[in-house]
Amino acid sequence: MTHNEDSAPQTTRLWGGRFSAKSDPIMDEFNKSIHYDRRLFKVDIVGSQAYARALKCKGILSEEEEATIINGLDQVRAEWENGTFKIMPADEDIHSANERRLSEIIGPTGGKLHTGRSRNDQVATDTRLWLREQCEKLEADMRKMIDLFVQRAEDDSDIIFPGYTHLQRAQPIRWSHWLLNYAWRFKADAERLTQLKERFNLLPLGSGALAGNPFELDRLAMAKELGFAGVIQNSLVGVSDRDFIIEFLFWASMTMLHVSQISEDLILWSTAEFGFVQLHECYTTGSSLMPQKKNPDSLELLRGKSGRVFGKLAGFMMTVKGLPSSYNKDMQEDKEPLFDAADTLDSCISLMGSIIHTLTVIFYFFFY
Amino acid sequence: MTHNEDSAPQTTRLWGGRFSAKSDPIMDEFNKSIHYDRRLFKVDIVGSQAYARALKCKGILSEEEEATIINGLDQVRAEWENGTFKIMPADEDIHSANERRLSEIIGPTGGKLHTGRSRNDQVATDTRLWLREQCEKLEADMRKMIDLFVQRAEDDSDIIFPGYTHLQRAQPIRWSHWLLNYAWRFKADAERLTQLKERFNLLPLGSGALAGNPFELDRLAMAKELGFAGVIQNSLVGVSDRDFIIEFLFWASMTMLHVSQISEDLILWSTAEFGFVQLHECYTTGSSLMPQKKNPDSLELLRGKSGRVFGKLAGFMMTVKGLPSSYNKDMQEDKEPLFDAADTLDSCISLMGSIIHTLTVIFYFFFY
Amino acid sequence: MTHNEDSAPQTTRLWGGRFSAKSDPIMDEFNKSIHYDRRLFKVDIVGSQAYARALKCKGILSEEEEATIINGLDQVRAEWENGTFKIMPADEDIHSANERRLSEIIGPTGGKLHTGRSRNDQVATDTRLWLREQCEKLEADMRKMIDLFVQRAEDDSDIIFPGYTHLQRAQPIRWSHWLLNYAWRFKADAERLTQLKERFNLLPLGSGALAGNPFELDRLAMAKELGFAGVIQNSLVGVSDRDFIIEFLFWASMTMLHVSQISEDLILWSTAEFGFVQLHECYTTGSSLMPQKKNPDSLELLRGKSGRVFGKLAGFMMTVKGLPSSYNKDMQEDKEPLFDAADTLDSCISLMGSIIHTLTVIFYFFFY
Amino acid sequence: MTHNEDSAPQTTRLWGGRFSAKSDPIMDEFNKSIHYDRRLFKVDIVGSQAYARALKCKGILSEEEEATIINGLDQVRAEWENGTFKIMPADEDIHSANERRLSEIIGPTGGKLHTGRSRNDQVATDTRLWLREQCEKLEADMRKMIDLFVQRAEDDSDIIFPGYTHLQRAQPIRWSHWLLNYAWRFKADAERLTQLKERFNLLPLGSGALAGNPFELDRLAMAKELGFAGVIQNSLVGVSDRDFIIEFLFWASMTMLHVSQISEDLILWSTAEFGFVQLHECYTTGSSLMPQKKNPDSLELLRGKSGRVFGKLAGFMMTVKGLPSSYNKDMQEDKEPLFDAADTLDSCISLMGSIIHTLTVIFYFFFY
Repeated sequence: MTHNEDSAPQTTRLWGGRFSAKSDPIMDEFNKSIHYDRRLFKVDIVGSQAYARALKCKGILSEEEEATIINGLDQVRAEWENGTFKIMPADEDIHSANERRLSEIIGPTGGKLHTGRSRNDQVATDTRLWLREQCEKLEADMRKMIDLFVQRAEDDSDIIFPGYTHLQRAQPIRWSHWLLNYAWRFKADAERLTQLKERFNLLPLGSGALAGNPFELDRLAMAKELGFAGVIQNSLVGVSDRDFIIEFLFWASMTMLHVSQISEDLILWSTAEFGFVQLHECYTTGSSLMPQKKNPDSLELLRGKSGRVFGKLAGFMMTVKGLPSSYNKDMQEDKEPLFDAADTLDSCISLMGSIIHTLTVIFYFFFY
Repeated sequence: MTHNEDSAPQTTRLWGGRFSAKSDPIMDEFNKSIHYDRRLFKVDIVGSQAYARALKCKGILSEEEEATIINGLDQVRAEWENGTFKIMPADEDIHSANERRLSEIIGPTGGKLHTGRSRNDQVATDTRLWLREQCEKLEADMRKMIDLFVQRAEDDSDIIFPGYTHLQRAQPIRWSHWLLNYAWRFKADAERLTQLKERFNLLPLGSGALAGNPFELDRLAMAKELGFAGVIQNSLVGVSDRDFIIEFLFWASMTMLHVSQISEDLILWSTAEFGFVQLHECYTTGSSLMPQKKNPDSLELLRGKSGRVFGKLAGFMMTVKGLPSSYNKDMQEDKEPLFDAADTLDSCISLMGSIIHTLTVIFYFFFY
Repeated sequence: MTHNEDSAPQTTRLWGGRFSAKSDPIMDEFNKSIHYDRRLFKVDIVGSQAYARALKCKGILSEEEEATIINGLDQVRAEWENGTFKIMPADEDIHSANERRLSEIIGPTGGKLHTGRSRNDQVATDTRLWLREQCEKLEADMRKMIDLFVQRAEDDSDIIFPGYTHLQRAQPIRWSHWLLNYAWRFKADAERLTQLKERFNLLPLGSGALAGNPFELDRLAMAKELGFAGVIQNSLVGVSDRDFIIEFLFWASMTMLHVSQISEDLILWSTAEFGFVQLHECYTTGSSLMPQKKNPDSLELLRGKSGRVFGKLAGFMMTVKGLPSSYNKDMQEDKEPLFDAADTLDSCISLMGSIIHTLTVIFYFFFY
Repeated sequence: MTHNEDSAPQTTRLWGGRFSAKSDPIMDEFNKSIHYDRRLFKVDIVGSQAYARALKCKGILSEEEEATIINGLDQVRAEWENGTFKIMPADEDIHSANERRLSEIIGPTGGKLHTGRSRNDQVATDTRLWLREQCEKLEADMRKMIDLFVQRAEDDSDIIFPGYTHLQRAQPIRWSHWLLNYAWRFKADAERLTQLKERFNLLPLGSGALAGNPFELDRLAMAKELGFAGVIQNSLVGVSDRDFIIEFLFWASMTMLHVSQISEDLILWSTAEFGFVQLHECYTTGSSLMPQKKNPDSLELLRGKSGRVFGKLAGFMMTVKGLPSSYNKDMQEDKEPLFDAADTLDSCISLMGSIIHTLTVIFYFFFY
């Protein structure tokens, strides 16, 4: 992610001047993250604007320069939002792309923005801002899904259902009891999500490359502006802590285990042999040759995606294992699993809720 | 773990009467857990005593029967503690072993203890009680280790040290800054541990096999007696939730990632080439042929064990993936990873603290 | 991947007629794989052409129909290759996209191609064809990389180097001895790759949805045409075996473990403290603020990607765990990890070779 | 595993003389492996006897010394086999225990055995010898299990069974077709096992600590005596390659995935709702309260253990990731997962075979 960990602003490929040899295109490709980290464009700009304000307060930027930078960044953001931002070949990541474009728009003043800042604290700030937004979205998703489970339990509270252990019929229970079993599990997931969000909602900006920022910027003010509950007090933590990403990936994996269990239950129950429930047609696919079939593809995909998300957790934990302290480039491998897990969870939670909401229960009584 | 999920007490191999065929010794071995779950003996007895009291309150046990059972259980516990308990071939798990021994001591009254209880809620209760104790121990371990890091940081606050990024010398930092980096990480680990402990500190007892307990026992009273903050309200959750074990295994894996990073740093710094620190001789091993060598075996083992603990997490998550709801025998695979992770963490945390405490820093100044 | 497992050809969304309710856009998105499986376009066409020939031999297609289909497929392929193929909203996967386009080009005859074929055996065939090509490419990559290690070992055979155990200097060795250590490891990796390729190089086509093909097609002829060493004799294996993907992901993970170890060594050796080697400037990045720095980003990325690839293995193994036999939609999760692992390995092997080839060894003698 | 990587024989705690400080009992416990690696006793002795012969051939041991050592080792082995070997507190691992006991029996001559040998090549040799035996046993297990599947398929070839995709009834198949599906899978597993065994069946002895053996011992003769197909030609590979362990763990995990799928099928089919098969009573457990229940505990344990074995693979791969080359103490973490996986597979394969052999199929015809 961060090829350049110091604070000198530059408008071209940052270390380009030093190297005479031709580059290796595979290495250039490896090094690039713009094709996936571009989705950080907004938080990158918001973070930079807060940083510009902090520089102004210390007199490092004049009031005019600050305004120029902030307005220029607004324009960069607008270009992203209306789809006119053009990524250039030398744009390695979203941070250098935004910086390059800012300087094109406002001229050399753009270069002052990076004073005392490093890619290391910048990227850490952006990622936390981005993930906080995702967590808020997922918290809302979870609440909505839990509501659908609870609503359904309330509506169907008279339905008696076979309770199983070892997949053998054991004792009759209410169907709503099964639903609430998962509502409780998801409630715990939601609680874990809130707790982890609170844990990482701290400002890394001002940590520099690793040893802090030389300008005694007002970090509390930046934290407040960016909605952080406080600042990360140790600059090494600031630049190198990716625990919040691991925690999020674990959260996602745990939630998906629950999804995999519900899916397993419903796949069984929608077989001809069990025949307890029927999925809404939206969530099945059929077969023209075998018209009797209504395949529960949605549930199988949900169950299958529990593996996908676990793989993100397992992979990134292995990446981090045994790394020396402080910033190491290996950490660039954090974004893709993070983005993929957040997107997958967002879809899976919504889908799970809709499936429960639209399910037909075709089994009312049970005598064994 | 729980071969018998209903509430009828029996003193011999519980389903033995039904089967005429000879048993398969491999299956018997597979089914047995007494060789590792015996360490639950104490919590199993404490849980049973609380259950006996609850039965008495509802008049299911007379006051005399209750006293007989409680005293009998005290004696079983004493036998475990003084090493005189004899495990019999038919003792499949700690629960049947304790029950069998109780009936030997007090006679047929012992059989009444299991009234309305199932192995499913019993084992869930025992496991939570046991893990709560472990968490408390580990919280104390963590506090002590963090104190050693902080104390060391305070003592050595004048030592200047090279700060690295990408393992290349970057900017000078204080050695204490490095120490506190990890103190902060461990503080977050400790916070996670406390949060997860609070999350699982709820009583499953009274959930029966899956559908609850027919005798309207006073679950709040049992919870209070056993130190739980409340009761699990859904009986399916009560018997089948192993999320707290997964959470604990994740906690352990995350903490070990931090241990692996410290170890990596110190292994590098104790090379001839870096030469910044020297491990206390306790924590190295040597070689008679190559007397110059002081191998940092302790740190390598700590780093290596981060893989071991992650394997417990990954393995048990896979076991749980795709299981149908309610109790399934697959869950018997929860105990060994849990026990191993708790023991490993206990040792690793202590060792990490001692290594930091006894370390010699042989590098004071750094000019690059 | 395969929404339609039977053999009836259709030109629109295949089960569309049956369902009256509106679809759920999240589900549609979930179900779609065209955005990543489009890279199978060529093998899908080659497989279809072989299938058309087999149908003709049994008289199910006339000679003219066969020619029309084969030419039409050639045109579809040309459209993909020259970038004019237009993916339509109803194209769920590469198979339905190719089929839809074929029928647009040649009319209703296109519909006859799918006679007796199922998505299940079609996709299994395509995947094996695609992976076989990748394996051949990777075998060549491996050979080239091994050659670079061996060549370097030969060129530098006079360089004496410190040998380490426990990262403590132990006994002098040749630098070439270190190089050949990894050449041997990669040789074993290459052998594993060849063995696994041979193991999966068998034809699934003709397995139908699960129970075989009713038309007694000449499977050996299809196998021969497509370069398979034989046919898969059990149709359930044909449609549901994804072991070859797991094996490939394991192969990739194992190879990346070796890459992670080389990277670790070279990262250490290119520190100021060790100072044994210097990476070519292509493979490092610098810092304008700290001009002394030459960060070994390439090696850190290689080391980090070992986690990425392991995550693909772990994730897909979890997806497969506990699935019932035969085809389940969960298996759609096989493509993305497979593609990513193949691409990652291709880059990493090339990069590793180039790094070794261009490395400067700056340490010649060693006395301890 | 190997605390002492050089070749000097010693009869007490090997580096004890050097350290003045008191030891840390946690560290001592960590360092010890005798409680699990004692099962290597036999291969350790066989390997030592071959080494003694090689030393004699070079004149390093006299003929008399050789005979004394070989006879002494036979006696040590006899003590292990008849249960009279006493492990002493200073015995860290099986290698030092055997060495200590040898010297007690034959006196100072025992010390000459270790001349030019290191713990590093010794332990690598022992592990390969041990695993080779296990692989041979498992190959036989596999063959027997496959035979039971095939025999059953032959016996029951008239039974028609519903074939499923997506767990929805699709087309009728033969029950034997299902059985052979898994016979084919296990055949591929067996082939993989044979290939990996051949790959690792090479002699590491003579690799020394890392840089080879100074006495030009006849390694081919040792290889031949010990049944190895050849020698490991690079001494770094000899002491540090644990790929064969990773490969074995992967083999075990893959095989267990197949076991998990069979188990899933049979668990479903033995529900009241499917009702296709009935497990032999040996492999189920019952419930006195719910006499209708026959829980398929055996299959659930088999399915659950697929997670256990995968955890061994994932854990050890993480341990190895990012290690520098040559011997590192982290590798001591290889034995426990290896032993556990070998034992688990041995049981699971036997159990799987017996379950299939004794299963009752209660469903003969199927019309949908």
